[in-house]
Amino acid sequence: MLKVAVVGATGYTGRELVQILARHPRVRLCCLTSESFAGQRFAQVYPQFRSLVELPLAKLYEMEALAACDFIFSALPHGLSMEMVPKLLAMGKPVVDLSGDFRLKDETLYPQWYGYAHSCQELLARSVYGLPEYQREIIQEAQLLANPGCYPTSVLLPLGPLLREGVIDPDEIIIDAKSGVSGAGRAPKLPFHFPECTENFKAYKVAEHQHTPEIEQELTRMSGRSLTVTFTAHLVPMVRGILSTIYLRAASGVGEREVWAIYEKYYGDEPFIRLLHPPELPETKFVSGSNFCDISFRLDRRTGRLIVISAIDNLVKGAAGQAVQNMNIMRGWPEETGLK
Amino acid sequence: MLKVAVVGATGYTGRELVQILARHPRVRLCCLTSESFAGQRFAQVYPQFRSLVELPLAKLYEMEALAACDFIFSALPHGLSMEMVPKLLAMGKPVVDLSGDFRLKDETLYPQWYGYAHSCQELLARSVYGLPEYQREIIQEAQLLANPGCYPTSVLLPLGPLLREGVIDPDEIIIDAKSGVSGAGRAPKLPFHFPECTENFKAYKVAEHQHTPEIEQELTRMSGRSLTVTFTAHLVPMVRGILSTIYLRAASGVGEREVWAIYEKYYGDEPFIRLLHPPELPETKFVSGSNFCDISFRLDRRTGRLIVISAIDNLVKGAAGQAVQNMNIMRGWPEETGLK
Amino acid sequence: MLKVAVVGATGYTGRELVQILARHPRVRLCCLTSESFAGQRFAQVYPQFRSLVELPLAKLYEMEALAACDFIFSALPHGLSMEMVPKLLAMGKPVVDLSGDFRLKDETLYPQWYGYAHSCQELLARSVYGLPEYQREIIQEAQLLANPGCYPTSVLLPLGPLLREGVIDPDEIIIDAKSGVSGAGRAPKLPFHFPECTENFKAYKVAEHQHTPEIEQELTRMSGRSLTVTFTAHLVPMVRGILSTIYLRAASGVGEREVWAIYEKYYGDEPFIRLLHPPELPETKFVSGSNFCDISFRLDRRTGRLIVISAIDNLVKGAAGQAVQNMNIMRGWPEETGLK
Amino acid sequence: MLKVAVVGATGYTGRELVQILARHPRVRLCCLTSESFAGQRFAQVYPQFRSLVELPLAKLYEMEALAACDFIFSALPHGLSMEMVPKLLAMGKPVVDLSGDFRLKDETLYPQWYGYAHSCQELLARSVYGLPEYQREIIQEAQLLANPGCYPTSVLLPLGPLLREGVIDPDEIIIDAKSGVSGAGRAPKLPFHFPECTENFKAYKVAEHQHTPEIEQELTRMSGRSLTVTFTAHLVPMVRGILSTIYLRAASGVGEREVWAIYEKYYGDEPFIRLLHPPELPETKFVSGSNFCDISFRLDRRTGRLIVISAIDNLVKGAAGQAVQNMNIMRGWPEETGLK
Repeated sequence: MLKVAVVGATGYTGRELVQILARHPRVRLCCLTSESFAGQRFAQVYPQFRSLVELPLAKLYEMEALAACDFIFSALPHGLSMEMVPKLLAMGKPVVDLSGDFRLKDETLYPQWYGYAHSCQELLARSVYGLPEYQREIIQEAQLLANPGCYPTSVLLPLGPLLREGVIDPDEIIIDAKSGVSGAGRAPKLPFHFPECTENFKAYKVAEHQHTPEIEQELTRMSGRSLTVTFTAHLVPMVRGILSTIYLRAASGVGEREVWAIYEKYYGDEPFIRLLHPPELPETKFVSGSNFCDISFRLDRRTGRLIVISAIDNLVKGAAGQAVQNMNIMRGWPEETGLK
Repeated sequence: MLKVAVVGATGYTGRELVQILARHPRVRLCCLTSESFAGQRFAQVYPQFRSLVELPLAKLYEMEALAACDFIFSALPHGLSMEMVPKLLAMGKPVVDLSGDFRLKDETLYPQWYGYAHSCQELLARSVYGLPEYQREIIQEAQLLANPGCYPTSVLLPLGPLLREGVIDPDEIIIDAKSGVSGAGRAPKLPFHFPECTENFKAYKVAEHQHTPEIEQELTRMSGRSLTVTFTAHLVPMVRGILSTIYLRAASGVGEREVWAIYEKYYGDEPFIRLLHPPELPETKFVSGSNFCDISFRLDRRTGRLIVISAIDNLVKGAAGQAVQNMNIMRGWPEETGLK
Repeated sequence: MLKVAVVGATGYTGRELVQILARHPRVRLCCLTSESFAGQRFAQVYPQFRSLVELPLAKLYEMEALAACDFIFSALPHGLSMEMVPKLLAMGKPVVDLSGDFRLKDETLYPQWYGYAHSCQELLARSVYGLPEYQREIIQEAQLLANPGCYPTSVLLPLGPLLREGVIDPDEIIIDAKSGVSGAGRAPKLPFHFPECTENFKAYKVAEHQHTPEIEQELTRMSGRSLTVTFTAHLVPMVRGILSTIYLRAASGVGEREVWAIYEKYYGDEPFIRLLHPPELPETKFVSGSNFCDISFRLDRRTGRLIVISAIDNLVKGAAGQAVQNMNIMRGWPEETGLK
Repeated sequence: MLKVAVVGATGYTGRELVQILARHPRVRLCCLTSESFAGQRFAQVYPQFRSLVELPLAKLYEMEALAACDFIFSALPHGLSMEMVPKLLAMGKPVVDLSGDFRLKDETLYPQWYGYAHSCQELLARSVYGLPEYQREIIQEAQLLANPGCYPTSVLLPLGPLLREGVIDPDEIIIDAKSGVSGAGRAPKLPFHFPECTENFKAYKVAEHQHTPEIEQELTRMSGRSLTVTFTAHLVPMVRGILSTIYLRAASGVGEREVWAIYEKYYGDEPFIRLLHPPELPETKFVSGSNFCDISFRLDRRTGRLIVISAIDNLVKGAAGQAVQNMNIMRGWPEETGLK
């Protein structure tokens, strides 16, 4: 049994990791840390885990407890992750980091999009961006794995095959994404206060969302040429789920048949991607609590536009589930272990 | 036009007051104050009021602005109200206070139920408990009106007639009350964070809720003899509304016919009380946004218990609407002015 | 007082009409009809109206009751409206129809988008599409007014000025729209059953929504040249509100300053349009229950795209409120009467 | 592997059974039937099960398919279950029935509470009421197991120890219960239509709920003397969960210490009951998706009343989870198999 730690276990991503790892047949949860709740037991913070996960919450910097573990998930907020992860790596532990701090290769993007300079730029070159469907080989070798963001996961998976096969115009990519509230984290703030948040819908960080450069970096890698995208995030009054509606310009002569063939080629055997054929369309409820990414599309013959729709659970395939999928790959285990 | 101020205008109760008063045909909103948002305009804090209520928010202690008004609503949190109201009264202004600070006549109850000593006990004797259906005459003379709590309003209205007419056992009153989340105020806290609060139901402050002595004080006044009640509050994942289910022991020989007759006698002409006959039952949606209290009951013949159910909008009849109803009475205006 | 009827009063649009008209100072509700609930009183179907609107519900074809009215709102479902409206017009009554049956000028679009042939094509030429901000003069003369659809209202208002001024590419219009559930009507169906609908988000009728040709018809009129749009509708787990995110290609040299100037020119004096300047953005809650359309935009400098966002209450500015606004214009009354 | 069938697999209870059984290590799902969706695959009806449970849905009376199974869960609505279950028993299969049709021992209660006569009264004597914590021995021998109702489960578990130990007055039991909407089933009806149901709270079937005699029958068995209860059901705008607040009169001299001791004695070793000590109280979210029943209480010293609160997931411990727990007992397997 692999001894596993979750650093930052009491945020929503951390809790989801604990939930998945507690049922994983090949790991044992050994250490949970929490900035805000150190000294309490995990089940006091999340009472649904009473009698299931009664581990105590260590302080963030209680390094001896972490030293006794074999594998570390870091679910700290960005900015803080940047400080902590180098220490974990220095202990010789493989780390899966779920923040945005090690995803961007170009350190100059951090001040622009995250609002702070990067404090350990040398690690950016070493970190592996962990989108399993595209990076399996290199993930196996990773020591520092940067787990993809929730929005980027919901965008990269449906776009990857189309870009790689060159059937869409890479300069005409518009992403209209909608997320549940758990994506905003567990710290109470006015926009997420129940009476403000329920029965409301809005866009936010329009043309400024920090997941934009992450999407562009990876799409650029996939397509082999530099590109930019228009990306807009919206807040849905629900807890879990991201649905991304992506507007594309199909290359001339590309029809529905070609697109389905490409998707089947890339994803027909993927364990966590489901292709939905008409009349079916993705809905966030269909992926809630699972590690699936559901994908479908329609070709709007009148305008020639391709409308691709994907759905994931932002806390699972968009965070903790994908992180465990990456751990499975890093350990050489079957990729679905503990995830179905 | 009466020049009116709302002190503490940016909490939910304050906002509801502003909304009602902005449409009231006999008043003009002159001054709004806010602890947290002084310096901004009201419509910046509540953008639904853009182009409707553009008043600036004064600081809490900007007494000159208040001095220019004729009538003051105080929607401050309890504890703070206690400090502020004496100053307003000292300016010679009539005050409707929506906190709990001037509702209890016995000052010793404050440390026990509110957790602090009362700082101006002499005002407790002078304040008038403003339940219009029971206190019209004395409300007309009030200078300091203590507006009833939301839960108490939902309990006193259905119980008053039954206690006054002596058809229930005053020692067997059990109140199971359920409230929407706006009752908890606008300050973001973890239990009201959307992902925690939605899809959840719970009881809280069991046997400790501060509205218990308020209910007992007023029921004692209504029945003419000292009594205690069992009162349990619950949180419903919705914004507005209180539904109270009240379990009573009917006096022997009292049947449904007698109970309906009593309710008709007391409330047949009340503008803001609606009696619902079977098969109808109160639902919070039916009173949402209105100043109505809906009341119905069933006699459980098998057990001899009377089950009375009431519904109000906690922010309207349970707070701002009733406060305006009280102002109307204090000014000698028709009671429904601005409320229908 | 104008004697007004609402045909189809128990759907959500009908109910909203009743609510607005019951408070309108220049009209008197005289006749309500309902297919499903004829014989009951309105307040039995919507108990929130108890003691407020106690009118009986007439049968749909009880023409004498309608004959006694001066002005008729038809809130029937499309298809049925087509049958009923000619009879109302034959009685010499002005009609505001809230269905889609008289909005499209080209009758061949009905089989394609609505699934049935139009049964009274001659009326299509006579009906006036009632978007007040663009059609005031002609609305004044209308006998049959086709009230705009909810999605089209949310799209036409933000796009009109930009198209008229020629600052966007009319061949590159992508509309990603999100609506609350009341837009689907009151008939219970599985997708709107609470346990299915809450905590879910999805797109629907992708590339097939019947509001698409309505949007194109009016945008074509506004721009003076034929155009098509890509339009995708989504369902948000909330009751009211539409937010539309619209992706545009700005003409070269057009910056934020120009766009603001255009919006100010067109809408600076409009009573029901509010322009929101950064950092503000529209949210559906801000327009809930009101007849406002809130509009803002961002220019994404990196991609050159203009992202315009609008919000309306689908039942008010998207239906009943706009219908009353149109009635006000048709009667020569101040446009805001009964709407603020 | 035990070959298992679920009859009525597409209602919410049936779906929950499928979900639990699909992960149960000792069973194999062999046959699913559906009245409404026969001919489709299960994953078409519930797309979250795509690639997980692709079984076809047989017709209800396709007895050959059922004959090939070893064990049958019936999740049919009551009334229909009464017709089907005798046929299943006649095939020699053990049956766990999740409807109310075999729970009441006195057949005269069916016309009174369910509105129809019982068609196979002889089975009432043979059926075993399957509340594991109280009936383990007899469950082991059951051929027809009547799985307890959701509300009764939430009531019997907290009351059992107190009644058995005689520390409460059995004539003073008041139960105020609140349930999520999934308890109403999957058939779309107006009260559960999203716009009607969200942001609403109400009581229903007051003094008439069919779970009342079931509660009374089992409490009578537990206490050894005939008793009646007052039971009121309420609808909470959430999907899952029941919270019951139970008002009791403690026997004189009984304090909190005694009550805790009794609960510890009965439930200290129960795998699916969790006792929550102050300041903790049950919340439905804490048991969502699990087979736990959480219990706590407060003694209101001022009134002498004992307020007991329990929470379950109505679809798990209140239905499918308890059904699987019962199967485990019937097969002699560890009771928690497949449930944690």
